[in-house]
Amino acid sequence: MPQNADDANGLPYYKPVGRECEVFEHAYKNRLPLLLKGPTGSGKSRFVEYMSAKMKLPMITVSCHDETSAVDLLGRYLVKGSETTWQDGPMTRACRTGAVLYLDEIAEARPDTIVALHSLTDHRRILYLDRHDEEIAAPPTFMLIASFNPGYQKGWKELKASTRQRFVSIEFQYPSEAVESEIVRAESNLDLSQVKLLVQLAGRIRNLAELGLAETVSTRLLVSTAKLMADGLPARLACDVGIVQPLTDDAETGAAVRDVVALVF
Amino acid sequence: MPQNADDANGLPYYKPVGRECEVFEHAYKNRLPLLLKGPTGSGKSRFVEYMSAKMKLPMITVSCHDETSAVDLLGRYLVKGSETTWQDGPMTRACRTGAVLYLDEIAEARPDTIVALHSLTDHRRILYLDRHDEEIAAPPTFMLIASFNPGYQKGWKELKASTRQRFVSIEFQYPSEAVESEIVRAESNLDLSQVKLLVQLAGRIRNLAELGLAETVSTRLLVSTAKLMADGLPARLACDVGIVQPLTDDAETGAAVRDVVALVF
Amino acid sequence: MPQNADDANGLPYYKPVGRECEVFEHAYKNRLPLLLKGPTGSGKSRFVEYMSAKMKLPMITVSCHDETSAVDLLGRYLVKGSETTWQDGPMTRACRTGAVLYLDEIAEARPDTIVALHSLTDHRRILYLDRHDEEIAAPPTFMLIASFNPGYQKGWKELKASTRQRFVSIEFQYPSEAVESEIVRAESNLDLSQVKLLVQLAGRIRNLAELGLAETVSTRLLVSTAKLMADGLPARLACDVGIVQPLTDDAETGAAVRDVVALVF
Amino acid sequence: MPQNADDANGLPYYKPVGRECEVFEHAYKNRLPLLLKGPTGSGKSRFVEYMSAKMKLPMITVSCHDETSAVDLLGRYLVKGSETTWQDGPMTRACRTGAVLYLDEIAEARPDTIVALHSLTDHRRILYLDRHDEEIAAPPTFMLIASFNPGYQKGWKELKASTRQRFVSIEFQYPSEAVESEIVRAESNLDLSQVKLLVQLAGRIRNLAELGLAETVSTRLLVSTAKLMADGLPARLACDVGIVQPLTDDAETGAAVRDVVALVF
Amino acid sequence: MPQNADDANGLPYYKPVGRECEVFEHAYKNRLPLLLKGPTGSGKSRFVEYMSAKMKLPMITVSCHDETSAVDLLGRYLVKGSETTWQDGPMTRACRTGAVLYLDEIAEARPDTIVALHSLTDHRRILYLDRHDEEIAAPPTFMLIASFNPGYQKGWKELKASTRQRFVSIEFQYPSEAVESEIVRAESNLDLSQVKLLVQLAGRIRNLAELGLAETVSTRLLVSTAKLMADGLPARLACDVGIVQPLTDDAETGAAVRDVVALVF
Amino acid sequence: MPQNADDANGLPYYKPVGRECEVFEHAYKNRLPLLLKGPTGSGKSRFVEYMSAKMKLPMITVSCHDETSAVDLLGRYLVKGSETTWQDGPMTRACRTGAVLYLDEIAEARPDTIVALHSLTDHRRILYLDRHDEEIAAPPTFMLIASFNPGYQKGWKELKASTRQRFVSIEFQYPSEAVESEIVRAESNLDLSQVKLLVQLAGRIRNLAELGLAETVSTRLLVSTAKLMADGLPARLACDVGIVQPLTDDAETGAAVRDVVALVF
Repeated sequence: MPQNADDANGLPYYKPVGRECEVFEHAYKNRLPLLLKGPTGSGKSRFVEYMSAKMKLPMITVSCHDETSAVDLLGRYLVKGSETTWQDGPMTRACRTGAVLYLDEIAEARPDTIVALHSLTDHRRILYLDRHDEEIAAPPTFMLIASFNPGYQKGWKELKASTRQRFVSIEFQYPSEAVESEIVRAESNLDLSQVKLLVQLAGRIRNLAELGLAETVSTRLLVSTAKLMADGLPARLACDVGIVQPLTDDAETGAAVRDVVALVF
Repeated sequence: MPQNADDANGLPYYKPVGRECEVFEHAYKNRLPLLLKGPTGSGKSRFVEYMSAKMKLPMITVSCHDETSAVDLLGRYLVKGSETTWQDGPMTRACRTGAVLYLDEIAEARPDTIVALHSLTDHRRILYLDRHDEEIAAPPTFMLIASFNPGYQKGWKELKASTRQRFVSIEFQYPSEAVESEIVRAESNLDLSQVKLLVQLAGRIRNLAELGLAETVSTRLLVSTAKLMADGLPARLACDVGIVQPLTDDAETGAAVRDVVALVF
Repeated sequence: MPQNADDANGLPYYKPVGRECEVFEHAYKNRLPLLLKGPTGSGKSRFVEYMSAKMKLPMITVSCHDETSAVDLLGRYLVKGSETTWQDGPMTRACRTGAVLYLDEIAEARPDTIVALHSLTDHRRILYLDRHDEEIAAPPTFMLIASFNPGYQKGWKELKASTRQRFVSIEFQYPSEAVESEIVRAESNLDLSQVKLLVQLAGRIRNLAELGLAETVSTRLLVSTAKLMADGLPARLACDVGIVQPLTDDAETGAAVRDVVALVF
Repeated sequence: MPQNADDANGLPYYKPVGRECEVFEHAYKNRLPLLLKGPTGSGKSRFVEYMSAKMKLPMITVSCHDETSAVDLLGRYLVKGSETTWQDGPMTRACRTGAVLYLDEIAEARPDTIVALHSLTDHRRILYLDRHDEEIAAPPTFMLIASFNPGYQKGWKELKASTRQRFVSIEFQYPSEAVESEIVRAESNLDLSQVKLLVQLAGRIRNLAELGLAETVSTRLLVSTAKLMADGLPARLACDVGIVQPLTDDAETGAAVRDVVALVF
Repeated sequence: MPQNADDANGLPYYKPVGRECEVFEHAYKNRLPLLLKGPTGSGKSRFVEYMSAKMKLPMITVSCHDETSAVDLLGRYLVKGSETTWQDGPMTRACRTGAVLYLDEIAEARPDTIVALHSLTDHRRILYLDRHDEEIAAPPTFMLIASFNPGYQKGWKELKASTRQRFVSIEFQYPSEAVESEIVRAESNLDLSQVKLLVQLAGRIRNLAELGLAETVSTRLLVSTAKLMADGLPARLACDVGIVQPLTDDAETGAAVRDVVALVF
Repeated sequence: MPQNADDANGLPYYKPVGRECEVFEHAYKNRLPLLLKGPTGSGKSRFVEYMSAKMKLPMITVSCHDETSAVDLLGRYLVKGSETTWQDGPMTRACRTGAVLYLDEIAEARPDTIVALHSLTDHRRILYLDRHDEEIAAPPTFMLIASFNPGYQKGWKELKASTRQRFVSIEFQYPSEAVESEIVRAESNLDLSQVKLLVQLAGRIRNLAELGLAETVSTRLLVSTAKLMADGLPARLACDVGIVQPLTDDAETGAAVRDVVALVF
């Protein structure tokens, strides 16, 4: 595998696709919270890891879901034997230590979670722990970052305007062909010629709007498929289990995607 | 940054937009609860902070949400080792100490929360703590303030008439161009000429009803964008991440707003 | 402020609007439960306070809501250190001590609450505390009173016939102009001429069915506005924050109500 | 008040309207559960009290509601200090002691309640207390009786066929004019001539199907009204608060019922 | 009452209607789970009792309902004073002791209950008690039987195909006239001529599809009615309270069924 | 029963139907999670058991359902007397010990379960135990496998794209006639000629799309039926209780399937 510069510096691998690093630094300097918008597997989480490492900031990740509540983020009392102790949740830990707090898929969390952020995301920068009777002023290094996938269809949860307008926002798209080839190559160690074919395949599938796919091929899928190919699995079989099957359960749609694969490999 | 008078007095920055200060003082004197109605980021919370500080009243804030219940506001029993102690919630603390209690986005709270306010908001001014077997008569300095965003579309919760008619109400709108410029300048320290362009931009976007935005540019967004610009981020990029992206996820709407940005910067 | 007779007797201020006092006394004497029906702010709660004080009966009030359950009313076990003690809820306390129990907005309570009333509201007059393994026979002075707002639109909860037929019922309406003037004057100490204008204003707004208001001006709103005016706030501003804003969030409806205000003041 | 025979025998007052006593006795002798169907206030509960007293059987009543669960009926563990004790619920107590268990409005209870009855209502006559690891064989004197109001409109809960077919069922209707007069007279001590007018009034209202009332005048309402009249409240006012207001909140329907009252009194 | 053979052998009374006993024995021998499908009161539960007794297998019954959860079936920790002990639920007890586990109305149970069965109903025959950190291999005598009423209308719960295909299934129908007469006679001791009339009546009602009954006369209803008649209640009254009233609350449908009764008795 | 090779090696019986073993090995080597898609009873679970045994990897199975939550998978605190101990859930155990974790029917689990997998299924391979304040890096031997039945109709839960794109996926179908015969023969020991008829019967039923079956005959049903036949139950009766009754409750559909049975046996 080709050694890449960041890796040499001990940074996780990340290939910028626009001016996102610049915006991150200005938002950090001005203590503005950041919202990353974009589809599945477009590198939002990796970007946060990369920038945190580069700026030498500790990072705490929370994957939000339907049942993520304020208690989970803020903390709770634990009864151990005859003693009751308070245990900080990840948001409180990030706030105490001045870390980067990354709320992945924030729109999935329960509303109390999001509201708990309000006082942290305006001029106050204070976290209220009513249950622990404590107020924590966020240190200057504390930064709040959230991700959000606006591509989900109707029926998925929306962020309220009163929440969104608290964040500076960056849109993520799938990278250009050249950048994506570089990423897939770096992560899978597959021959460059094969990598290029895979990235071309992704471009073709992404352009087939008529397939009606809920979401299209992510860079992540290309990396998985490339790993299987680099390991010796035949290209068509690797594309079937790494791209076609993850994208659709429908027999006809599957056949259509498989036809595209057959044109490339 | 220009030193402003309130700051000199140790007050948080707030620029009045109408006769809201006068109404606040009369409501306080007559012990009438106050409801602040208005859109996201129009200064409702800042106004309460400012008036509380100006009148030297302690202030307790509760950000309400779907799961804010009366127990959260009134208090609960905590078991610590072999002892059980009662812990006042924020409403009880405000009532005991005669503070200003600010319920942000009251319409989001669960109905038991709102009903717990009833005896506090009529001639009785008493808080009933059934669980703690206690009645607290609110001292004369106690004041209840709530905020509410009526601009949310259908489907969002309404306040019942029996609750609303307990409050004197003030409507908040976005400030005039002159006032808004003053606010953005004071908070961001951006050059006045640039500030004026930003405020003009906001005016144009707010007038574009055909964009169909759920909610339009708040003063808060202008302040964030101004901070990024003052810090050296190019104006168009700052407007993109500070205004366009927070307002919409739709590609076409985004392009339309970006066109307006291009007319100004 | 003019001293009024009841006040002199230590009674809370209440101005009868019909024969409600007579019905109350007969219901009390015959141990029949009483249901007060009527719109927001029409004096139902004040009436119960007044009659209880006049008949020298202790009174216990419960504001019902979506989550009022039988446990809240009947009582619960509390664990304090290594001891478990039973704590009577307000219904049990009223039943033990022979007080007047007032369930405000009973239709909001959860069904188990209402069913817990059944044995108290028929010939048995017994409260069953299954969890405490106890039966309490209500003393002769115990009286159950509930309030209910039938004006709420469809979608609001209804009382079941099997519950309603357990109560003798009185309907409350807004008082006549003369009575309402007397009430507003007594509570606000505003000049009588101004009071009369306010009451006229209320009459005009109540007659504007075409406004489509969910609920119209209550006597309570008039009293708040009168207080602000008596305290020096200009009449139109007082009417705006005390009547127009509490009644509606709609710009057009607000303008229409404000036009009516401008005709009077 | 005229002394009536049952009262003399220490029995609660009950006036049979058909052959319900005979069916009760045969069901009891054959250990068949009994379901009483009928509208609000038609005497179902009183009938069970009367028969239990007449047959000298102890009786335990449970008013079922939306949140009546099997745990409430069967029993639960209570923690008292450092000891945990089992507390029988009413169904278990009835089963242990061989009492009559009366489940009022059984269709309101949660499904686990109803299923807990299954083994008690077939040839097994056993109550399974899984949580207490105990099986109780019901003694011969144990009898299960339930009530149910089939007149509720669509949307109200139904009993499943697999539950209903476990019960012998009796239908209750409002009594004949002669019987109802006797009941109202016995309970209120109102002059017989007045009683007869009240019962006629009930008949007229019950026949007015066009009123569209959810449920019509019950014998219970007549008794309340008769008590108020016997106590000196004028007939029309007594009918208004005792019959008209409990029956409807609609102004037009109320006026129509009041017209019928005016024809009689 | 005529002594019947099974009774003489100490077996509960059961009259086979097809080859269900044979299928039960083969399923048992091959350790295949069994699903009994059929309407209310068609003898499914009695069949399981009978076969268990005949094959001398201990039997544990669980009546499933909306709130039957895996914890109820598998077991839970109980806190008793300062000790915590594990209490096996009925499924665990059956599995440990090699009993017949009968889940009555399995489709009513919560999905976690049904999934807990998966490992027990395939080649593994293992019960996983994650909470107790234990795996129990079912002994050869363990057998799982479930019942299900497919006749319920739409809206009632369905069993998923992945659950159903784990069971060998037997369909239960009401027995033939000769068999049903024998059953009713054996259980009620009513004169055979009367029994035959009752069974004819059942046949007529079952054929009246135009009655639109949710479920029709079960053998259980016939037995109840026969007991009341054998005890001296007149036939028509017995049929009214034992058949007509349990079948319907609708006046017209009731009259139609009563007409059929009048043709027979 | 013919001894088969795998059995001789101590492996559970599994007959490969495609290149699924090869894909499994490559996914394992590249630490890619695996998703098995396919209908009920097509061998997904057996395949995981077989591969785990073959590769000598310990395997932990979780049958997911509507109420499987992250706490169930990750672990919880247990209070035992005066001590509180942490108990690992199955996901944590698998992660600590480097086992194969098989989540059967993953789409049924609650969303918090699925989100808990995110950090385990990307480049991080870390399990975050916020409640236990611990991070576990998965050892190289840890592998995550999930199953999913895409054939369920609308209304059944879907996996989100952001979850699916984390897995390499294999589609399972019912095996070819030759392979299925071999499987049924090996598992039931039924005569080969009879086995072949059964497999032909399955083919015919699977082709009858017009039956509108929710799901068709699985290999599992064929094995059950073959066992009953091998044990002496007549073929038609065995097919009725082993195939027809498990597939449908509808009388007409049942008759149609039974006709197909009659053509074969």
